[in-house]
Amino acid sequence: DSSAVESLDYEVIENYAYREEQEKRGKLFVGYQVSLKWFLALLIGIGTGIAAIFINISVENFAGWKFALTFAIIQKSYFAGLVIYVSFNLALVFSSVYIVTRFAPAAAGSGIPEIKGYLNGIDVHGILLFRTLVGKIFGSIGSVGGGLALGKEGPLVHIGACIASLLGQGGSTKYHISSRWLQGFNSDRDRRDLVTCGCAAGVAAAFRAPVGGVLFALEEVTSWWRSQLMWRVFFTSAVVAVVVRTAMAWCKSGKCGHFGAGGFIIWDISDGQEDYSFAELLPMAVIGVIGGLLGALFNQLTRYITYWRRNYLHKKGARVKMIEICLISVITSAVSFGLPLLRKCSPCPESEVECPNPPGMYGNYVNFYCLNDKEYNDLATIFFNTQDDAIRNLFSAKTIHEYSAQSLLTFLVMFYTLAVVTFGTAVPAGQFVPGIMIGSTYGRLVGMFVVSFYKKPNIEEGTYALLGAASFLGGSMRVTVSLCVIMVEISNNLKFLPLIMLVLLISKAVGDAFNDGLYEEQARLRGIPLLESRPKYQMRRMTAQEGCRTRKVVSLPRVIKVSDLVSILRCNTHNGFPVIDHSRSGETLVIGLMLRSHLLVLLQSKVDFQHSSLPSDSRGGSFPIRHNNSEFIKPVSSKGLSLEDIHLSQDDLDMYIDLAPFLNPSPYIVPEDMSLTKVYNLFRQLGLRHILVVPRPSRVLGLITRKDLLIED
Amino acid sequence: DSSAVESLDYEVIENYAYREEQEKRGKLFVGYQVSLKWFLALLIGIGTGIAAIFINISVENFAGWKFALTFAIIQKSYFAGLVIYVSFNLALVFSSVYIVTRFAPAAAGSGIPEIKGYLNGIDVHGILLFRTLVGKIFGSIGSVGGGLALGKEGPLVHIGACIASLLGQGGSTKYHISSRWLQGFNSDRDRRDLVTCGCAAGVAAAFRAPVGGVLFALEEVTSWWRSQLMWRVFFTSAVVAVVVRTAMAWCKSGKCGHFGAGGFIIWDISDGQEDYSFAELLPMAVIGVIGGLLGALFNQLTRYITYWRRNYLHKKGARVKMIEICLISVITSAVSFGLPLLRKCSPCPESEVECPNPPGMYGNYVNFYCLNDKEYNDLATIFFNTQDDAIRNLFSAKTIHEYSAQSLLTFLVMFYTLAVVTFGTAVPAGQFVPGIMIGSTYGRLVGMFVVSFYKKPNIEEGTYALLGAASFLGGSMRVTVSLCVIMVEISNNLKFLPLIMLVLLISKAVGDAFNDGLYEEQARLRGIPLLESRPKYQMRRMTAQEGCRTRKVVSLPRVIKVSDLVSILRCNTHNGFPVIDHSRSGETLVIGLMLRSHLLVLLQSKVDFQHSSLPSDSRGGSFPIRHNNSEFIKPVSSKGLSLEDIHLSQDDLDMYIDLAPFLNPSPYIVPEDMSLTKVYNLFRQLGLRHILVVPRPSRVLGLITRKDLLIED
Ligand SMILES: Nc1ncnc2c1ncn2[C@@H]1O[C@H](COP(=O)(O)OP(=O)(O)OP(=O)(O)O)[C@@H](O)[C@H]1O
Ligand SMILES: Nc1ncnc2c1ncn2[C@@H]1O[C@H](COP(=O)(O)OP(=O)(O)OP(=O)(O)O)[C@@H](O)[C@H]1O
Ligand SMILES: [Mg+2]
Ligand SMILES: [Mg+2]
Repeated sequence: DSSAVESLDYEVIENYAYREEQEKRGKLFVGYQVSLKWFLALLIGIGTGIAAIFINISVENFAGWKFALTFAIIQKSYFAGLVIYVSFNLALVFSSVYIVTRFAPAAAGSGIPEIKGYLNGIDVHGILLFRTLVGKIFGSIGSVGGGLALGKEGPLVHIGACIASLLGQGGSTKYHISSRWLQGFNSDRDRRDLVTCGCAAGVAAAFRAPVGGVLFALEEVTSWWRSQLMWRVFFTSAVVAVVVRTAMAWCKSGKCGHFGAGGFIIWDISDGQEDYSFAELLPMAVIGVIGGLLGALFNQLTRYITYWRRNYLHKKGARVKMIEICLISVITSAVSFGLPLLRKCSPCPESEVECPNPPGMYGNYVNFYCLNDKEYNDLATIFFNTQDDAIRNLFSAKTIHEYSAQSLLTFLVMFYTLAVVTFGTAVPAGQFVPGIMIGSTYGRLVGMFVVSFYKKPNIEEGTYALLGAASFLGGSMRVTVSLCVIMVEISNNLKFLPLIMLVLLISKAVGDAFNDGLYEEQARLRGIPLLESRPKYQMRRMTAQEGCRTRKVVSLPRVIKVSDLVSILRCNTHNGFPVIDHSRSGETLVIGLMLRSHLLVLLQSKVDFQHSSLPSDSRGGSFPIRHNNSEFIKPVSSKGLSLEDIHLSQDDLDMYIDLAPFLNPSPYIVPEDMSLTKVYNLFRQLGLRHILVVPRPSRVLGLITRKDLLIED
Repeated sequence: DSSAVESLDYEVIENYAYREEQEKRGKLFVGYQVSLKWFLALLIGIGTGIAAIFINISVENFAGWKFALTFAIIQKSYFAGLVIYVSFNLALVFSSVYIVTRFAPAAAGSGIPEIKGYLNGIDVHGILLFRTLVGKIFGSIGSVGGGLALGKEGPLVHIGACIASLLGQGGSTKYHISSRWLQGFNSDRDRRDLVTCGCAAGVAAAFRAPVGGVLFALEEVTSWWRSQLMWRVFFTSAVVAVVVRTAMAWCKSGKCGHFGAGGFIIWDISDGQEDYSFAELLPMAVIGVIGGLLGALFNQLTRYITYWRRNYLHKKGARVKMIEICLISVITSAVSFGLPLLRKCSPCPESEVECPNPPGMYGNYVNFYCLNDKEYNDLATIFFNTQDDAIRNLFSAKTIHEYSAQSLLTFLVMFYTLAVVTFGTAVPAGQFVPGIMIGSTYGRLVGMFVVSFYKKPNIEEGTYALLGAASFLGGSMRVTVSLCVIMVEISNNLKFLPLIMLVLLISKAVGDAFNDGLYEEQARLRGIPLLESRPKYQMRRMTAQEGCRTRKVVSLPRVIKVSDLVSILRCNTHNGFPVIDHSRSGETLVIGLMLRSHLLVLLQSKVDFQHSSLPSDSRGGSFPIRHNNSEFIKPVSSKGLSLEDIHLSQDDLDMYIDLAPFLNPSPYIVPEDMSLTKVYNLFRQLGLRHILVVPRPSRVLGLITRKDLLIED
């Protein structure tokens, strides 16, 4: 399966065509490109912000209608209510899975492993297409609105990346909505920067956390980072923040239906616990440990299930995928409706005026199947509710003893199981919000014990719920700095930063003892070969020469017969070939590296074929100009040309082709006995695709030091 | 002067001694090292936090005593008050400059350019010594307590870096307070990571902004960044936050004298302006432009003055430096005391109960030389006050029309001049707080016009002051993301993030049109050759071969006569020499690169001298073990050995030495016609010191691709 993925070329191929183009472009062009980059960043921000708001409003409205309808009906019959509730959810989930399986298979899942792979240098087919974008947006609305145990945050990251990539190529080429003047950024290198911006924008939009978005892109997703990029990425996420804020201000007037008038901060707990004592650090550490254990278990279980799904269930075709998720939807709806019914209602606390609330409305204390008017159902408050509201209720302060331990435990077990089962189905699915749900449940459980044990008035259960959420996410995703900042930004409480960090340190350490992070595990299962930032330990003792697995290098002569070239390309799958020139005196010289994709372009265009087997410049002097640089650019996320698409006549096959103008004349080279650690760093830091291992040089032509690189303008 | 700076070696020299050591160390050792790194991060956090608190408490107390004393005396005589005030300040400043010039010359200035240089790969002599740390701490107390127009934030970054470096080498080696077991991190590479942590800790401590600290280190100071480092850096700054918070909680009980009970947020304006309209964006953009202009002017003026100082004034010795700063201190004191005297007092607004306050106390509305009891002096409120309080007053909301335009303008002009003149004197000096003062003054001025022009009730002058502060810092330092986050964290108001960003975008763009950022300009003046993140434009057209300035490479044979080696070392200043082996058949082979510093170690220890001119392993087989790796490590911030320190007898000079075991066998090599842009990226991204330019290879031994680097454990 890993043959489906290809590496990306982040290197600048300084071939003849490229140099030609560079010559033509002046400093003015650089200025134009810079402003275009900023303009694109602006567009990415606006696009992602609008997409996020659109998804949010749709989800909230579907959920609102659903709960309003169900609540109206259960006044008459609980059974009819159940049926309506289940079928409403089923319809939404079905439309989601239908869109995804039929039109945009790459839109399933969270997309973060794929984006992470993309920015690590691996191209997974189809992840950045226009149809994926559309599938992801509408699929998310269906799956989240349908009440499944998944979130819309991961998909938003993918959506941001898609928007960025599509804008970068000036719209979708397939659907002919592309404009010429935007097409300055077609190299993998430029696209990488745009996707980074999109990724940050996605997180910023999902959590309304601009700083967290930048840090998430920086820490978790990208593998290379240039400080010039930082400011642009930050700008993008600030634009998202402005767009979202503006839209929400507009919604305040009531134009957005059930979306209503939430604040910019999703789960504001700035009025929560004021202070904490040292004695509380112990239960917090316990939360960290639980988070690490449950998170690692989550990764492990989802890994098994995903493995099983890929190899057995999903092989059977799209229909099985649909049936599977529909079944899960029915079970989820039935459980979230049925379990609260089994639960006895509790009387409302006296101090609370807004008790009880109908489900699906903003606020705690949901009245559901209660005999008395002044009663509420604590399980329904979290289970029979939208996830956003449930989390708000779990985080809420000043609501001590709202939940019984029994309800929380029931919810924890059920929701954890549902989240594990739902993960990896064929709908867009994020793991952030389910993770927060799970974590805040056991966090609140611990908080209840702390409240009753320490008996201090200032301890809030909501604080522990927040820490629990952080711990589960840390234990499962192993994200650190950015998660801290995101948690601070979503809760608007800077005071808890050290606590969140403590909890994350512990849960990450505990989780790391068992397995890799969720995204790494999933990337591995999908055959995305991520290069970690740290080289493996045993590489220290290996040399570059030992590192190359294939001993026999397939190389090309400078002027090659077309038929030879075709047969070489046919009998292996390598993507890069060293080109070797034989001088008259019989000496050989490596003159560069030729990429398979460039060779295919040359074979297809045929204009460079020549009859003589002599180098093309041996007569004239310089090379004739027959290509411009853009012809060599691989279209985004498509497989590019393949040898089978190219038809060559016998005449063509007898001709020759001179590769010198097209090859990369200066690939990176390392001496044979450099340690593999160093090679690894070189490869990863510079985002390379090929490194040539060469014998030790026979002489040194010069030394470059810092002084040589300090050229004044 | 640039000969005083040397490059650092971030490369791992994989020589014989290193490999030997690696062999001995198992996986357990790696674990030990990781925990040690975290432990060091903890210590750095605690150390920097304590240093920051110590400086803060001292400064606040000195300032408090000063103002209390002066205020007591001016009840009798204003002239006596002036004398006391001036001499108190003079005493503090004198002690500061005395400490610095006598004991720690490297402690003068802000230190950020030097630290930036260090992390860019340049070692400036003496910046990370124990004496520099001490000088910086006590010098800052004197200079800031003495009321000069400078701040303690820049010095705190330097202090954090010093603490980190000293902890990394296990204490100061010179003063024999070093412990053996901490000395695992003596390579430049490990020290770089520690200094990065220290740097972030410094910013976090200075502004009580943990996230801002991480981002500042990431964006502004370091040149390389590894994502593993991020979590540790963040941990360090969170530790700082905890330490500072704990200390401040302890101070609440009144044990810290005048330091009193400020909140964790330095200039909290979370109760400021609620909302902003689109019409306000225009005056905000104006602030951005002003900030860019004034910031660029600041950089330009300080550059001229620094240049002049270095070349004329400071050449005359330490005494001139002392006299200079004492003079500036007297002028500053006289101006800040005298100007408010010339100003007419204004009546207190009715609504305000806490009006008037004595100067140096927390709060607005300072009574100074007012006839009436219910009057305050608006110029004294900002001028005759500690800088922290002045900024708090300028940022304050709900105090419309507190200041007259005339006072603000007077203050702006005077303080700007003082800040320019004070910059570059021989005391520890940060530019953050003066920058905030200047910026918030003109920001508030613009705010006053906006308030009277737009006539909307919700507009606060304090908001504009904050934006002004951001704009000036942006226009002068050109820091972006981290400055945004720092401004948000010091003011505790996430709402203004997009506004701050807008202002910064503009002011940075305007400033960039004139000159480079403050730190870059200063680094250039000090002869610190920073490598920017972006290669120069003309490098695209140059090859590596053209890049080397010296055509004739000085290289060494594998076995060299000691006298030859000494004469080669003597007749040039190069720091790296390719080593070339001649095989019997007359072929030559570059077997590695030898560093001057390693050669000097070998010459000094003499144990490797041999009588025969044959390679040392030609008889036995393997090399004898005579050195361990730590002998080759250069002590922190010292010049290391020099050739003059080594005494060789005639017998020694006639011996031979085999360099093979000690050289770096795998230096980075590039083919001669690689473009200089690519070489630049390689050099900077990997933090190299030498790159060898070699002829094109004659064959390829292997290709390394992603697949080859995916080794499973
Ligand atoms: N021209 C070549 N001659 C000989 N061996 C090669 C050549 N190119 C690559 N290899 C080797 O073949 C193996 C797989 O090569 P391949 O070109 O498919 O690279 P890859 O790791 O799959 O990356 P990509 O995504 O670029 O295909 C690697 O071990 C590599 O060392
Ligand atoms: N062994 C050598 N033979 C010939 N030229 C050299 C050699 N080493 C360095 N050079 C050249 O000499 C110039 C200055 O060399 P130098 O070794 O002082 O480096 P530098 O840039 O000052 O860095 P460092 O801080 O390491 O000294 C550079 O232009 C470099 O190309
Ligand atoms: Mg392949
Ligand atoms: Mg030098």
